[in-house]
Amino acid sequence: MKALVFQGEGRKAWQDVPDPGIEDPGDAVIRVDAVTICGTDLHILKGDVPEVSPGTVLGHEAVGQVVETGGDVRNVRPGDRVLISCITACGRCRFCRENRFGQCRGGGGWILGHLINGTQAEYVRVPYADMSVHPLPDSVSSEDAVLLADIFPTAYEVGVLSGQVGPGDTVVVIGAGPIGLATVATARLYSPRRVIAVDVAPSRLDAARSVGADVTVRADEDPEALVGDFTGGLGADVVVEAVGVPETFEQCTRMVRPGGRVANVGVHGKPVTLHLESLWSKDVTITTGLVDTYSTPLLLEMTAIGRIPAAPALVTHRFTPSQMEEAYDVFSRAADTGALKVVVGAPSHDAVSLPA
Amino acid sequence: MKALVFQGEGRKAWQDVPDPGIEDPGDAVIRVDAVTICGTDLHILKGDVPEVSPGTVLGHEAVGQVVETGGDVRNVRPGDRVLISCITACGRCRFCRENRFGQCRGGGGWILGHLINGTQAEYVRVPYADMSVHPLPDSVSSEDAVLLADIFPTAYEVGVLSGQVGPGDTVVVIGAGPIGLATVATARLYSPRRVIAVDVAPSRLDAARSVGADVTVRADEDPEALVGDFTGGLGADVVVEAVGVPETFEQCTRMVRPGGRVANVGVHGKPVTLHLESLWSKDVTITTGLVDTYSTPLLLEMTAIGRIPAAPALVTHRFTPSQMEEAYDVFSRAADTGALKVVVGAPSHDAVSLPA
Amino acid sequence: MKALVFQGEGRKAWQDVPDPGIEDPGDAVIRVDAVTICGTDLHILKGDVPEVSPGTVLGHEAVGQVVETGGDVRNVRPGDRVLISCITACGRCRFCRENRFGQCRGGGGWILGHLINGTQAEYVRVPYADMSVHPLPDSVSSEDAVLLADIFPTAYEVGVLSGQVGPGDTVVVIGAGPIGLATVATARLYSPRRVIAVDVAPSRLDAARSVGADVTVRADEDPEALVGDFTGGLGADVVVEAVGVPETFEQCTRMVRPGGRVANVGVHGKPVTLHLESLWSKDVTITTGLVDTYSTPLLLEMTAIGRIPAAPALVTHRFTPSQMEEAYDVFSRAADTGALKVVVGAPSHDAVSLPA
Amino acid sequence: MKALVFQGEGRKAWQDVPDPGIEDPGDAVIRVDAVTICGTDLHILKGDVPEVSPGTVLGHEAVGQVVETGGDVRNVRPGDRVLISCITACGRCRFCRENRFGQCRGGGGWILGHLINGTQAEYVRVPYADMSVHPLPDSVSSEDAVLLADIFPTAYEVGVLSGQVGPGDTVVVIGAGPIGLATVATARLYSPRRVIAVDVAPSRLDAARSVGADVTVRADEDPEALVGDFTGGLGADVVVEAVGVPETFEQCTRMVRPGGRVANVGVHGKPVTLHLESLWSKDVTITTGLVDTYSTPLLLEMTAIGRIPAAPALVTHRFTPSQMEEAYDVFSRAADTGALKVVVGAPSHDAVSLPA
Repeated sequence: MKALVFQGEGRKAWQDVPDPGIEDPGDAVIRVDAVTICGTDLHILKGDVPEVSPGTVLGHEAVGQVVETGGDVRNVRPGDRVLISCITACGRCRFCRENRFGQCRGGGGWILGHLINGTQAEYVRVPYADMSVHPLPDSVSSEDAVLLADIFPTAYEVGVLSGQVGPGDTVVVIGAGPIGLATVATARLYSPRRVIAVDVAPSRLDAARSVGADVTVRADEDPEALVGDFTGGLGADVVVEAVGVPETFEQCTRMVRPGGRVANVGVHGKPVTLHLESLWSKDVTITTGLVDTYSTPLLLEMTAIGRIPAAPALVTHRFTPSQMEEAYDVFSRAADTGALKVVVGAPSHDAVSLPA
Repeated sequence: MKALVFQGEGRKAWQDVPDPGIEDPGDAVIRVDAVTICGTDLHILKGDVPEVSPGTVLGHEAVGQVVETGGDVRNVRPGDRVLISCITACGRCRFCRENRFGQCRGGGGWILGHLINGTQAEYVRVPYADMSVHPLPDSVSSEDAVLLADIFPTAYEVGVLSGQVGPGDTVVVIGAGPIGLATVATARLYSPRRVIAVDVAPSRLDAARSVGADVTVRADEDPEALVGDFTGGLGADVVVEAVGVPETFEQCTRMVRPGGRVANVGVHGKPVTLHLESLWSKDVTITTGLVDTYSTPLLLEMTAIGRIPAAPALVTHRFTPSQMEEAYDVFSRAADTGALKVVVGAPSHDAVSLPA
Repeated sequence: MKALVFQGEGRKAWQDVPDPGIEDPGDAVIRVDAVTICGTDLHILKGDVPEVSPGTVLGHEAVGQVVETGGDVRNVRPGDRVLISCITACGRCRFCRENRFGQCRGGGGWILGHLINGTQAEYVRVPYADMSVHPLPDSVSSEDAVLLADIFPTAYEVGVLSGQVGPGDTVVVIGAGPIGLATVATARLYSPRRVIAVDVAPSRLDAARSVGADVTVRADEDPEALVGDFTGGLGADVVVEAVGVPETFEQCTRMVRPGGRVANVGVHGKPVTLHLESLWSKDVTITTGLVDTYSTPLLLEMTAIGRIPAAPALVTHRFTPSQMEEAYDVFSRAADTGALKVVVGAPSHDAVSLPA
Repeated sequence: MKALVFQGEGRKAWQDVPDPGIEDPGDAVIRVDAVTICGTDLHILKGDVPEVSPGTVLGHEAVGQVVETGGDVRNVRPGDRVLISCITACGRCRFCRENRFGQCRGGGGWILGHLINGTQAEYVRVPYADMSVHPLPDSVSSEDAVLLADIFPTAYEVGVLSGQVGPGDTVVVIGAGPIGLATVATARLYSPRRVIAVDVAPSRLDAARSVGADVTVRADEDPEALVGDFTGGLGADVVVEAVGVPETFEQCTRMVRPGGRVANVGVHGKPVTLHLESLWSKDVTITTGLVDTYSTPLLLEMTAIGRIPAAPALVTHRFTPSQMEEAYDVFSRAADTGALKVVVGAPSHDAVSLPA
């Protein structure tokens, strides 16, 4: 089959590789019908994630059809259309029993396109299939579903739930890329008083409004003053960091009210400064986290009934599998191309939603 | 009356000042029978707390007898023996309604010995007395009680409860000064698997064992390795910072397990480095906080029945009121004197527990 | 002034009584501009609430203007337009400190129109005014606001919050009277999957749809089967009892799924049968409660921005103060008149929203 | 092998049956070294549990040694000494993902000695072994461990945790049989103010004191008045029902304070009366539940370090396997024999703790 293979720092190719097969009784082999590219994939290509070996197929988000299952798989069977979660879970370790699948110690966690071959391929083997894939109702398109593999559960679990968004809250989301937009969209499930989105790009702020931001502000237009104005100088109840650089994290800690929460969702490559000299007495809670995907069934149901605006706002570009390398090019130049999420799909497999 | 008056950076005196009186219907005037000195008082003297005006009477922890009350005070009356909490609460503002008395916006919060005259005096006026003082049962000595004015609720609320200590947890407390010791003592209420205390001073580690630490380790004996050994390399469930310097805070974040909590109790004067490049995916929760004293009634009851070892372990020195300046001297040279808490008391008022 | 006075079982009159005045430094005297009648008032008239003495002015829900305040009132002043909460809170007792104002032991709780003179009058004295009245923004009409005195916080606190409604839940509300309708409306703040309203009256089911019920079903059309159909036979996540008779409570316990919650809001006059022989192993949580009104500030803010549909759906009849007895008549014959909430208002005081 | 076989209402025998073998890749076959009898087994014999087919081997609590495992078992292997939990968990269904293993929809739940052959045998097959058995440290004796198969997690999860026992609470446990005693013992992990045990049998009250009850009272000595005396007339914070008859449940609801919790642990065969006419306004929470055994690893660790007093207080009689029917006789006549838990063990397999 064809797959997008990491060949070492800066190099990749859509090339022939052996077909995957069942290796373990919990495995499923799945034909990939729609897949997307994550910012993390770009980090791998830059060489920032050294545990990824050359030769690994990249990708950890996909929708597909089950073609074969091992003898211990009970929840899905060949023919089922499924969402492949970015997180694989053994279901039996201490962390899985607490729903912390992202911290799985039994061979799961983030392994697809990282420690084992991933989803940017025609077929993929998924270990612990019962815990790691989700049957899809017909009413959820593949484009919507593929955004639930990583983006939406990350935003909801690590941003909205860790930040304890509640009715009446003022919520600030810094960064209106795919994760930030998904945070805006899912924060609305808890009826905040207002969601304020901050970004440098006007087009992303437009997208933020389309998924439910009440207020948007350019990063250079003094968002801290704006938050102060809206909250009588007190600060926001919840601030979500969805960028991943020190400046924005530190800004979060200046924007939060006494007793408020800062939920870090961004992937950071450098340390940040935490101003405990002012924060020590401020009753703030700061959380970090890797997605666990325990919320995927809920998000799927809410998507199925139209309560979460997914694909229309976030998918900006579509490609066929043979255009995989072009998809990477467009996604990697997001500032120029305006790309948010790019979906690579096999039109013949899913006529509903994936025009080339 | 006599009182310890702040006279500007580096200067203080036990001197004559006017007696306080009722200024507001919610006030109580209280005769001080036992008072202690807090590390914060030393910071004020160094000039680190600029909002304290010269001429202010210092002190925010005391036990005494009510001598007069305003017309709106319902819960205490003259003659009552009471604990004066370090936090004053209006009881009516948004934050007080959430029990966040330390963040009171109605004229309370930490005001005694800070924004108004404090407790290191023969008499003190306490605003909002119904919310800010606690009647004492006879079974609680003044020495025990005075430790519940600040030390114990701070340790319990900002350390143990914010850190969500639970049965079976491995808890590390960095710093075995008064607050750290009170954290060790109150963590035991939740039956952790083990409490590990870390300090530079062997005498403080001895004190930690006496209040319930299972394991103690000198700061220069690689406590991180020890925590790893006890937890199979995973890290502690809860780490409490009770020192207030960058090195110990950063150590906390290295000791905590995935999914664990870091509760900062220490008062910090400088920013710290937060290593988000490793913590972003680790599901950690970091909390800060000023004490609210909502737990004081519970702690009083637990002290009354002997479930919290307070004074015997923490009070190292005792003085009469006329020795107030000497008490400051001993307390400020803790490394030499071995002082933990010093109590300044009026023996004739409380024969039970305050030998000069 | 004029007031509606309880004269013993079955008797009442809109008659002259002395004007109220300040009796305590925490009191406010308020001119009543809009008031409503509660089902509880009818119970009092029937003699079901023996602690109400003849001579008591009835009523515990109102909007008005502050005309005088005692010396200890800080949060409101004469001229302020305010909501009078059905619950009075001392703010200082054990229960008030836990936000359980309904259980106040310091002279508060439900006292208006019960233990002291109430709001169905031209003026009313409100004790502990700082904790018991809420300043109103101009954007909230008196008709909307008066529904926040009791109906909406009861529905939200005792139904939605005690029932722990969350995103994706199936919620059943049995009884679509004013409280049930307010439960439907406020449950939506947590994005349930579906809200199913049950009642005997088609007109009330129409009202339920207008405030956000997704599904409505007549009580005689086998609502249990319907809930089973929607949930794959499992049962509802949350069932709210908003009627107050044994049959509907017992139906709630048959409709709830394993692990689900039954929140009782209804006022019961008789014991019910709890089928522990089937429920003992079902992991259910059953809650009861009197409103505390801690959520009133939040509900006011959500009403001000149009997120809670209050008056238009619930207020069916309007009267002038001199028509108070007629208002009682219409409200007490709800099955015939279709009355949900009746508002008695003084048009000259609030031109915006109270046409006679 | 030999096993205790249910032969229909009122009949059972210790007889020859075929040895169990691996039927599914998740199975383990375990040699039983210690087993106990549960009150539920007596109910089965009386014919109260009709879903148990004649021919079924009874028993759902045991300790043993793994002799064979299926191809998908990863966490235990032959030779391991393990605790067999009374609850089997598929680990993959909706309820298992919420740790509600007792409600498992994937073929687990309470199945041993109920829907499939159980543990009162020389060997037993345990499905889903990774989720359903727990490796035992050497420091936990088989007698202590076997009490963690059902009794202790039931008491802790359904009583202590559902009842939200916390520091300072007054906790009443009605019924001092094995479950009630385990509730008393595990409630102490949260440092309640006092635990009051109620029973009809003085010997059981003695046992309650030995596991940590502060106060004991005979059921005929007005325990309600006693609870009132201890709580200023307010009632207990938490009341745990550990008997299973209407009278004791109703007593629980009279003993609980406003805002308190009633946790039902007892197995009920009849409906009870719930006095909503007084409870509707009292802010009470009533919970029911089947054990899930999610707490077993924690309880094992606490037992290993001596923090939970298990066997010495609860195991009153010991038998060899060939005395199984005698063990049933002694256990079923507990009022005469004073039996709490009886342990049936194979001495040669576990020399440490099981004298015949």
